[in-house]
Amino acid sequence: MNGSAKTKEQFCLQGVAASPGIAIGEVYLLDRQRISVVEQQIGPEHLDAEVAAFSAAVELTRLQLEQVQEQLRQNCQQEPFHIIDTQLLILRDPLLYEATIARIRQLQINAAGALKQVLQELLRTFEGIADEYLRERGSDVELVGERILRNLQGHEQPRVARLERRSVIVAHDLSPADTCQLDRVQVVAFVTDLGGRTSHTAILARSLDIPAVVGLERVTQQLPAGAPVIIDGSSGLLIAYPTAETLRQYLEKKRRYEFYQKQLQVYRDLPACTRDGASIRLQANLEFLQEAEPARRNGAEGVGLLRTEFMYMARQQPPDEEEQLQAYRQILASFRPDPVTIRTLDVGGDKFASGICLADEANPAMGLRSIRLSLWEQRLLRQQLRAILRASAEGPVRLMFPMISGLSEVRQCRALLDEVMAELRLEGHPFDARLPVGIMVETPSAVFLADVLAEEVDFFSIGTNDLIQYCLAVDRSNEHVAYLYEPFHPAILRALTRVADAAHQAGIGLSVCGEMAGEPMFSIVLLALGYRELSMNSSGISRVKKLVRQWDSHSNSVLRETLLRQKTAADVLRCLQQQLASAFPEAVPELDY
Amino acid sequence: MNGSAKTKEQFCLQGVAASPGIAIGEVYLLDRQRISVVEQQIGPEHLDAEVAAFSAAVELTRLQLEQVQEQLRQNCQQEPFHIIDTQLLILRDPLLYEATIARIRQLQINAAGALKQVLQELLRTFEGIADEYLRERGSDVELVGERILRNLQGHEQPRVARLERRSVIVAHDLSPADTCQLDRVQVVAFVTDLGGRTSHTAILARSLDIPAVVGLERVTQQLPAGAPVIIDGSSGLLIAYPTAETLRQYLEKKRRYEFYQKQLQVYRDLPACTRDGASIRLQANLEFLQEAEPARRNGAEGVGLLRTEFMYMARQQPPDEEEQLQAYRQILASFRPDPVTIRTLDVGGDKFASGICLADEANPAMGLRSIRLSLWEQRLLRQQLRAILRASAEGPVRLMFPMISGLSEVRQCRALLDEVMAELRLEGHPFDARLPVGIMVETPSAVFLADVLAEEVDFFSIGTNDLIQYCLAVDRSNEHVAYLYEPFHPAILRALTRVADAAHQAGIGLSVCGEMAGEPMFSIVLLALGYRELSMNSSGISRVKKLVRQWDSHSNSVLRETLLRQKTAADVLRCLQQQLASAFPEAVPELDY
Repeated sequence: MNGSAKTKEQFCLQGVAASPGIAIGEVYLLDRQRISVVEQQIGPEHLDAEVAAFSAAVELTRLQLEQVQEQLRQNCQQEPFHIIDTQLLILRDPLLYEATIARIRQLQINAAGALKQVLQELLRTFEGIADEYLRERGSDVELVGERILRNLQGHEQPRVARLERRSVIVAHDLSPADTCQLDRVQVVAFVTDLGGRTSHTAILARSLDIPAVVGLERVTQQLPAGAPVIIDGSSGLLIAYPTAETLRQYLEKKRRYEFYQKQLQVYRDLPACTRDGASIRLQANLEFLQEAEPARRNGAEGVGLLRTEFMYMARQQPPDEEEQLQAYRQILASFRPDPVTIRTLDVGGDKFASGICLADEANPAMGLRSIRLSLWEQRLLRQQLRAILRASAEGPVRLMFPMISGLSEVRQCRALLDEVMAELRLEGHPFDARLPVGIMVETPSAVFLADVLAEEVDFFSIGTNDLIQYCLAVDRSNEHVAYLYEPFHPAILRALTRVADAAHQAGIGLSVCGEMAGEPMFSIVLLALGYRELSMNSSGISRVKKLVRQWDSHSNSVLRETLLRQKTAADVLRCLQQQLASAFPEAVPELDY
Repeated sequence: MNGSAKTKEQFCLQGVAASPGIAIGEVYLLDRQRISVVEQQIGPEHLDAEVAAFSAAVELTRLQLEQVQEQLRQNCQQEPFHIIDTQLLILRDPLLYEATIARIRQLQINAAGALKQVLQELLRTFEGIADEYLRERGSDVELVGERILRNLQGHEQPRVARLERRSVIVAHDLSPADTCQLDRVQVVAFVTDLGGRTSHTAILARSLDIPAVVGLERVTQQLPAGAPVIIDGSSGLLIAYPTAETLRQYLEKKRRYEFYQKQLQVYRDLPACTRDGASIRLQANLEFLQEAEPARRNGAEGVGLLRTEFMYMARQQPPDEEEQLQAYRQILASFRPDPVTIRTLDVGGDKFASGICLADEANPAMGLRSIRLSLWEQRLLRQQLRAILRASAEGPVRLMFPMISGLSEVRQCRALLDEVMAELRLEGHPFDARLPVGIMVETPSAVFLADVLAEEVDFFSIGTNDLIQYCLAVDRSNEHVAYLYEPFHPAILRALTRVADAAHQAGIGLSVCGEMAGEPMFSIVLLALGYRELSMNSSGISRVKKLVRQWDSHSNSVLRETLLRQKTAADVLRCLQQQLASAFPEAVPELDY
């Protein structure tokens, strides 16, 4: 660290914890310049040449992306397959490729100008998407578009200079290409202005096993190159110009974290049961087909949440019944004999839902999305139910409907399911007529009505993300109110208790498949409140399993009572730390991670 | 009704119930044509003339609007003052007026082109506004702009032809000017594609006492001129080509409704107590200063909700402390000795909040708005608290914080209040140090935590609109999901019960100030659940009072138990109708209204 830095005072920035771990290094500012595009009229005699130039730029882009993919394969522990796959799909998408060519010819303009117009329209569509996962994928379109534009204009793709020291990459946003060109030895962390937990940077950082803090808003303007920083990717903290004492604390924290990570390897193949023998089922949330095998290797006992949106992404026609059936079969095969919980399509009213195009919604998260869209335009749901039912003939399938807000919706879903079953019977297709039918509990109304809903479904699965969002009226993707998105809010604990009690009373299945299930500290809260089945990103399973195996479920009722007495999120956290310190005297620090 | 119509089959359209009453007539299609504007470069020597033409068009617009206002005064039972007032303010607003002149000179373009540019920018700002009331006011900017453009281009303002028959005006949207030119004798109802309960059409229709159904989406394309229709403004139903039997039923319904309306006059000055003598306090929700006197005349016993946003609208600088104090004093004077409940500023992160300008939020209803914005940028809240406290020296003021989601926010608000009190004490300003401090209960988390919150506030007031919205995760201004916005949803009844029980347990005040308090059927539900204070648009007070005076509060506990056993909104409504039919054997039909 250089002399001038030493004179600066320590300060902290709080961002979104995107990838865990501690890193200490110097700021490397990565400045991805925007390229400027001039739209020009061109004579009809040059149109063919312009189209050819565009095709060549697209082809070059394809080659570059495949190269990036190869580099990622070599660098990543867990392959983030889908990121580049998605970009390659976009590259071929007629909405981008053919639309640009059409526009060159129609408007008689240069390829860069035409592409720019097409990109702007596509991006506007993406902005209106309610689903966070899909909305974030708009940045794929942007990145692919920029890359083609650079190739069209003969610019070099941006590169990071050789890094001399242990560097914390600080950028406005990071693309997969940016990251895979980085020097893996010297890069110790990522930090960005933009992004939430499901942004590219976050996904890549977790795949590369590099600590990351995102959503810091203006960090690129707040830190000069070379500034010494500590990144705590577990808590989302950045500490600039640390004092000697801070540095000492974090070196110790880093050592403990790394030791802990090594320990985790051991837990992969051990059963998930508490010290007193209570068995806990830890399952995987899958977003892509390719995640199934890694999830199995990470010790997932089945799939608690199979998101089916991946099949509908970056294409113009929805997948047909056979294609869906193949996908479900493949996943069932990976997990047999464990069950796979398939959630029906959960998207907003956007183009992915096969050409249904709704007016812009002012608050899409509370609009015509998810099960509402499925019930409104039943064709897709009907087709999906056929595929899911047919898959159920070949392995244990559980069917799950998202975003249920009342009993009428459950009854509509079940009526449709009965119709589809009758159809399949007539056609002679085998299926499991008794497959468990459950709902996501993610609206406050479903919580208030949990006892009523429990009478007519086979299981509940809590979607913590949306439940927290609606209960607290906080959009979790809005960084201005991120401070209010508190999973440990006493209101959330009460809601979780109410749902668990209703499920137990009715004797139906109960699970949590929201992101919080994979947070070790929260998993203990869930155990205390009566949850025995948690589904999470499979990379978090070992961590949770380690804790579960140290936990004594006799402590549950005491912890539950204490937790439910707390009045604020801060109180809950404080009380939890105290309780856990006494339960794990030898291992408190682990709970930081 | 003409011969060809008779051959058509009856069909129904469901829209938003915007103004109650039954109307029967023929469709009159009001086609407000868009005007096209061509942007042209003009020579520097013509700039002065262009600016002069623009000023003249603005002046002409002002005269026309004042004329419209005069016509409205003559036609309306309750004067919709603020609509034209707002439009006159917009006309003078430098953001419109001076910005256009500046653009004419800078870009050297024609006035119409410059105005169009300015309007587009302003409208984009309005679209981003979270608060429904304020967002709807964007259409004022549009209407004023169109009127200036017409005057600039020498077009006639649109006029409705002389109406020959009893006409139901069917339009894409209605402006105040459109409506006040209508022939009051022949116009029996309004029906529009656009709009919700707070749209212009809705407000005007209620002021003019004309039934209206809005938000029908494509009604202008579904009905030909001259088609016979029935409008039920109480239920939001439009019936086209009614059969003789339907017609007979609705003529009877209309007769009953009109008889009922006459009866209501009687109740204005009677006390609001049940047959067994339980006293119910019926208060007014005020949105504008000018509503105070009419509210008092309508029998309001105080103000349950004074929205303070009106003071911040259509201006660049927020009102200073003295201006606020004057406004509060004026309202206190109207209601003395009854209390006035002042809610602190409840807006989204938009320009009204005095230059705070946030990035677009994907879901503004769950973003940085209301108390969150006030606590983030404390200058405005501090100033408002000073004015409210100073007003409390002169009459019974109750202070209310909106959109509280947890105890931490209550504590932050109270800490700020203590600081402001200390300040005023030092400065020697008198105030009521013991003024009741309450919160709006409108987030589900506040419901879950009601018992905890009740320990630290003096009263709860339920904002039913937002509470229903967040509980059911349904944006109430989104017509695509309007069918899911169910006030009688059993989850809502349970939430209301939980809050009432917590308030009674703690012995604190309890009120409902959401729109549903003014719905007679819902007011009975509220009585059954233990509510004794309802605040509503003052035009609804007589209606509710009539019902209250017929109700026997001994029936409450039976009704409460029955209601809480219901499983769907349809069940609740059915059960309510049965129960009320036995409680009001002579008066069931009234409950339709």
